[in-house]
Amino acid sequence: MTVTESLARFVSGYEAHRIPAAVRHQAMRCLVNWAGCALGGAQHPAMDTAMDAFKPFFGAAQASVLGRAERTDAIHAALFNGISSHVLDFDDTHLATLVHPSGPVLSALLAFAQHHPIDGKSFIDAIIFGIEVECRIALGVCPEHYDAGWHVTSTVGGFGAAAAVGRAMGLDATQMAWAFGIAATQASGLRDMFGTMSKSLHPGRAAQSGLSAALLAKAGFTSSPRAIEAPRGFAHVLSSSPHLEDTTRDLGERWHVLDNSFKPYACGLVIHPIIDACLALASRPHCKVADIEHVELCTHPLVLELTGKDSPRNGLEGKFSVFHSAAIALRKGHCTAQHFSDAAVTDPATIALRQRISVQTQQAIREDEAFVTITLKSGEQLSHHIDHALGSIQRPMSDQDLNQKFLDLAQDALPTAQAADALALCWSADTLLDAGRIGLALSVAP
Amino acid sequence: MTVTESLARFVSGYEAHRIPAAVRHQAMRCLVNWAGCALGGAQHPAMDTAMDAFKPFFGAAQASVLGRAERTDAIHAALFNGISSHVLDFDDTHLATLVHPSGPVLSALLAFAQHHPIDGKSFIDAIIFGIEVECRIALGVCPEHYDAGWHVTSTVGGFGAAAAVGRAMGLDATQMAWAFGIAATQASGLRDMFGTMSKSLHPGRAAQSGLSAALLAKAGFTSSPRAIEAPRGFAHVLSSSPHLEDTTRDLGERWHVLDNSFKPYACGLVIHPIIDACLALASRPHCKVADIEHVELCTHPLVLELTGKDSPRNGLEGKFSVFHSAAIALRKGHCTAQHFSDAAVTDPATIALRQRISVQTQQAIREDEAFVTITLKSGEQLSHHIDHALGSIQRPMSDQDLNQKFLDLAQDALPTAQAADALALCWSADTLLDAGRIGLALSVAP
Repeated sequence: MTVTESLARFVSGYEAHRIPAAVRHQAMRCLVNWAGCALGGAQHPAMDTAMDAFKPFFGAAQASVLGRAERTDAIHAALFNGISSHVLDFDDTHLATLVHPSGPVLSALLAFAQHHPIDGKSFIDAIIFGIEVECRIALGVCPEHYDAGWHVTSTVGGFGAAAAVGRAMGLDATQMAWAFGIAATQASGLRDMFGTMSKSLHPGRAAQSGLSAALLAKAGFTSSPRAIEAPRGFAHVLSSSPHLEDTTRDLGERWHVLDNSFKPYACGLVIHPIIDACLALASRPHCKVADIEHVELCTHPLVLELTGKDSPRNGLEGKFSVFHSAAIALRKGHCTAQHFSDAAVTDPATIALRQRISVQTQQAIREDEAFVTITLKSGEQLSHHIDHALGSIQRPMSDQDLNQKFLDLAQDALPTAQAADALALCWSADTLLDAGRIGLALSVAP
Repeated sequence: MTVTESLARFVSGYEAHRIPAAVRHQAMRCLVNWAGCALGGAQHPAMDTAMDAFKPFFGAAQASVLGRAERTDAIHAALFNGISSHVLDFDDTHLATLVHPSGPVLSALLAFAQHHPIDGKSFIDAIIFGIEVECRIALGVCPEHYDAGWHVTSTVGGFGAAAAVGRAMGLDATQMAWAFGIAATQASGLRDMFGTMSKSLHPGRAAQSGLSAALLAKAGFTSSPRAIEAPRGFAHVLSSSPHLEDTTRDLGERWHVLDNSFKPYACGLVIHPIIDACLALASRPHCKVADIEHVELCTHPLVLELTGKDSPRNGLEGKFSVFHSAAIALRKGHCTAQHFSDAAVTDPATIALRQRISVQTQQAIREDEAFVTITLKSGEQLSHHIDHALGSIQRPMSDQDLNQKFLDLAQDALPTAQAADALALCWSADTLLDAGRIGLALSVAP
């Protein structure tokens, strides 16, 4: 069997009752995290701009734009929810490939489910197959694919969205292979877009492409049945050395969604252990900001390489400044998406503390590890060591952590009571008669 | 100036009065040829299937689907006209790069012009800038890009559509560069799709991507300002050895649309000189099919390599059979899109003649050259030599040839009188007050 055929048969034919309970639970964690990120990003200028641009072309009001009052046709809703869920750089990460898997999959699937009702059990199944396909195709082409300049979330996202919607609409194996072909031939997304609004377009377009692929395949639109592995197909054209045995290894036995990780802080992943250490120090009773003489961060060299901006000028630069991140954690004692706003980054009090921070790097320190030492004006020193950052595979965010993240992100988008109800609805997704209700619960009543 | 900046300034700032008259005339030839191809492909199963799949998501009836009665929002119309104009493999070709330039550009532009009125002069300008940008970006990455498996019509089509619509909507150079960035990050399309409906999806998706890119850039959606040449941008990621000096050479001085060629026959380009020779022989008074003992075709070796199917089973295979193509030209005395239908390919009389045809190849014969020798049952021999095929750069189709092609393709799509009127309207495009009228003229009254 070819790779495309194996994946198509898996998605169309694997019996849902064989999926382990832990996998189903993890899919609900993905849903909660994705929904929170989309709510938090709903008012971002990238969203306002994209919705303005496409408003004249909206079809019937079939699906919700999360955290907003507008309803659009399902294909546009998939685009917008893909953008909002990624625009804060706060969504989930499959660490082995750097794929952010939920954006394309859930944005396509929820929009589809609002237009074509499916039950919650099928909805959760579809999330699982979507994320599994994304991560597996990425495993077959990464890291070469990402290193060459492809934003892998974008390129494999269409396959994931096609798998999720294809599973939900009951495509057979032939149709599913066509859907993968149609997704393959729309695969795009360049890393040159990082730092611009166009980065967030990637999961949105992938969601649209995958949803469209499933719709076209269902209608009988033919495609290559071996688009992943063919000489002029996805893997060979978009990767210098594909290794597709990694795509199909232990298919149906090992579930890569279990390796999906969630970010507690809305900034570069390598900063997270520093923030953990600073939050721990800030919680000590005698650690007052006014008393701090100096802060020394000791980290893996990648931290300075990726997030070494010592004078960030705005929120986006703040997300890639270990100095700002450490300062905000020490000052505020917690760290939410709001702490990476333009206002937070230019706050003089935060800047004053930021300027007292220095970084030492050591190759021997792991990427998810950090040491922070504070020297007080009294001469006293306070130290904290983080072995594994919160959100790492070794120390995942708890369900409770995810709830708090969701509620933080929801606060500017939904009334408090509605946010709490919507969160509860997400956790009960597996039992819903109509999964489309999730879309209504997460959007603003018109 | 970077490549992206050069192209953006060219499209946004070049004064229309400097465009030579021959270039404007060639743009109208592109319009006529594109419109004919779209009419001919309007009833193809790929069109019915795609329209069925997306019908529930159509927005307001803003734009025409050529050769059909349905009207859709402009973004869907761009998709459908892109599909229909390419699905017969009968559209134009920029021979140096193998780009089929008009499909993405005109499908996006006409849909835009029906939603946002522009005059005919601006419409023709926009075609010229769109095709120029497509061909130039392709020149900077081909042939390596195509050889690697990219369908270059698809990948550069989005830039062309963005340039055309961006010019028509008056984007400034910064916005135009963003539009190129947004097009770059949506560039996709694999040659593995050849032989399936998904090949025709390519110019359709490119038209949508480019139109969307211009709309987003206009609204202020930011992107990389150097997406063509950046290390993680289009050229370096999608080509092993870009040579972007070919993209900007003689910009505004040399017009690549003048090198665009049009196909007289709806089949593989390398067969065309054979068909020319067979038509010339068929027109000789004493060359009766019943009297033919044997036909010998003498061609470049590529002809057998690309179109050597000696027993084609359906219309699509017939397009890649030099044997069927020669037989149909000799039997019918002309050669239209209808002669590559399933029925035409399986007609016993055509098969009988096909089986009397043999091919000899010689490296010394050029690709657009052919010798055909018929041996009659009487023993008499008739020969004809074609030095350059009709449709080659050396012997382009005349405006009259394009008119005949248009009318042949229109005959199943539009009433005869309407087709003639629409053709006249296309030739007067440069003088129209509202270019959107072309869309109405080329579609079926609801």
